[in-house]
Amino acid sequence: MFQKGITMKKFNVAVVGVGVVGTEMLKILRERNFPARDIKVLATRARTEEIGGCQYQVEPTTVESFEDVEIAFFAGTEGAKGASRQFGWPAVEKGTIVIDNGDDYRLDPRVPLVIPEVNAEHLKKHQGFISNPNCSTIQLAMALAPLHRRAGIKRVIVSTYQSVSGTGRAAIEELKAQTKAIGKETKAEVYPHKIAFNLFPEIGSLTDEFPGYYREEVKTIKEMRKILGKPELPVSATCVRVPVFISHAEAVNVQFEEELSAGEARDILRVSPGLKVLDEPRKSLYPVPLEVAGKDDVYIGRIREDHSAPHCLNLWVVGDNIRKGAALNAVQIAEEMIKQGLISGS
Amino acid sequence: MFQKGITMKKFNVAVVGVGVVGTEMLKILRERNFPARDIKVLATRARTEEIGGCQYQVEPTTVESFEDVEIAFFAGTEGAKGASRQFGWPAVEKGTIVIDNGDDYRLDPRVPLVIPEVNAEHLKKHQGFISNPNCSTIQLAMALAPLHRRAGIKRVIVSTYQSVSGTGRAAIEELKAQTKAIGKETKAEVYPHKIAFNLFPEIGSLTDEFPGYYREEVKTIKEMRKILGKPELPVSATCVRVPVFISHAEAVNVQFEEELSAGEARDILRVSPGLKVLDEPRKSLYPVPLEVAGKDDVYIGRIREDHSAPHCLNLWVVGDNIRKGAALNAVQIAEEMIKQGLISGS
Repeated sequence: MFQKGITMKKFNVAVVGVGVVGTEMLKILRERNFPARDIKVLATRARTEEIGGCQYQVEPTTVESFEDVEIAFFAGTEGAKGASRQFGWPAVEKGTIVIDNGDDYRLDPRVPLVIPEVNAEHLKKHQGFISNPNCSTIQLAMALAPLHRRAGIKRVIVSTYQSVSGTGRAAIEELKAQTKAIGKETKAEVYPHKIAFNLFPEIGSLTDEFPGYYREEVKTIKEMRKILGKPELPVSATCVRVPVFISHAEAVNVQFEEELSAGEARDILRVSPGLKVLDEPRKSLYPVPLEVAGKDDVYIGRIREDHSAPHCLNLWVVGDNIRKGAALNAVQIAEEMIKQGLISGS
Repeated sequence: MFQKGITMKKFNVAVVGVGVVGTEMLKILRERNFPARDIKVLATRARTEEIGGCQYQVEPTTVESFEDVEIAFFAGTEGAKGASRQFGWPAVEKGTIVIDNGDDYRLDPRVPLVIPEVNAEHLKKHQGFISNPNCSTIQLAMALAPLHRRAGIKRVIVSTYQSVSGTGRAAIEELKAQTKAIGKETKAEVYPHKIAFNLFPEIGSLTDEFPGYYREEVKTIKEMRKILGKPELPVSATCVRVPVFISHAEAVNVQFEEELSAGEARDILRVSPGLKVLDEPRKSLYPVPLEVAGKDDVYIGRIREDHSAPHCLNLWVVGDNIRKGAALNAVQIAEEMIKQGLISGS
């Protein structure tokens, strides 16, 4: 985050896509006083949009849109899906730093997959295109990386409780509409099943590489490995959509190479940047989605030893999937690159 | 389940408690043509209740109420909580077989803890008092027992998604009321947090024996061990309340002693009594709470190999917590005891 009034370089910025994530990016750029000289808003068609009390002139995206743009954030969801495939590398050709929230290039060896608090050093070898990890992976890696540095992760098993905002506006509306129609027959349109007063273990399409796994589960496995730099890290994931609007929760079972008590883990997490520990079970204090929504930090609670195997802990991790899980992390990547002198502004 | 018209012994039955579970017990006794000569309904105060289209004269519970009662079902939730502590063993003294859905005696060495499909043989040594396991444990043990018989369970890690009906009527009303007040401030009364569009990892009170674990998690660990007859079985549980009315779901990671493929597990589960396999992820077919509500069977899907450790599978298990998780299992225990000739009727 930048302080107002300090003389520093400024940047021409573009945000591509104005769905749930794109609009949050625009709000966060203003909230954090991002050193933008100009913010261009790009989408599929021209229009005016009011976002967070500001009027934005939305322009249609073309390769030429990136002329003079120093940093482009691709929101990567809903209507903007595919935009980075079409315009990402051409923008890099024009000298733009592309930060992509989409999943198309996350595993591409040319592309660093970065959470600034976890693996900022991966940015040094960037080739102009940086990927933002998946929402549920970001909060998981945020919670585990500080513990990994201390005790070495041996295996991770995660079960998720993911909100509908990860799917976008249509899903938010579907949950609202089905909820209002309580007791009446309603049709699932966005999702394969009704989501109000229900839940289902399907996020993303089915994959061939991991038989029986949906894509969100495969993303968790592969992105965790890339971010932590452990290509064989044993990870198992079950990803579940729940009738919550904002914030993902995760029940995490983690085994370490070395002994690590719940108390020490708590102490480590308490002083780690971007994390908040809320862990007083006697007072019913642990993070819950409704209270974490809108917050920047990833929250951790229910830190307890699991004696069913050696060196195991259980954790409960909750993060705002639209902020730290998407828009905020993308903006933080740009901030980190500026700090490291990796983006030339003027 | 009993066929109509077959001449058999009849029994004087009592149901203690008319909350969510007690009323379901009354419906199930009728649905299954339970050989009841008379059904006495007991609660704290006398009144008339209409349940499933039938009028029941509710009597206040006293020790004398069990005179001539051959089988008493204690619903064990809400108002009936504590009834088995007060009247359970005195009823046994009078010759009544007590089947208790409450959690007071589940770990008592005098008391068999039984799921008929899993450990019916534990009934043989009964002393008149039988406990029904916890709702989330029943469906977990139902799914795992047939696989345990084939490959031996080494470790279980379960994360639950539990509906509000497990708490009782007040919780059902609270979810409805908070849902209708969408967008407005509402207060949590039954639960420590708002439940509509939210979820939280707290079920039951905190325990001293397992630091940081809530009671539902401890129940899962200890009851699984007792039911499967493995007092040291490594089990880890995180129990989470979700905004769903009926049915609990569970993401289960299980490690076996021996190799067991997903395909073989599927084949075993398909032919196991009380289970239904619904596992066609390409067609989005797996069990979901809304569709399992009202069903007798425990449903299993997302059966897939987890290569993060040897001999591991992931399973997705969904059951109606009021039926198989409580009322139905209690009635099935009585049916099993009748079949084994363990209850003397006339």
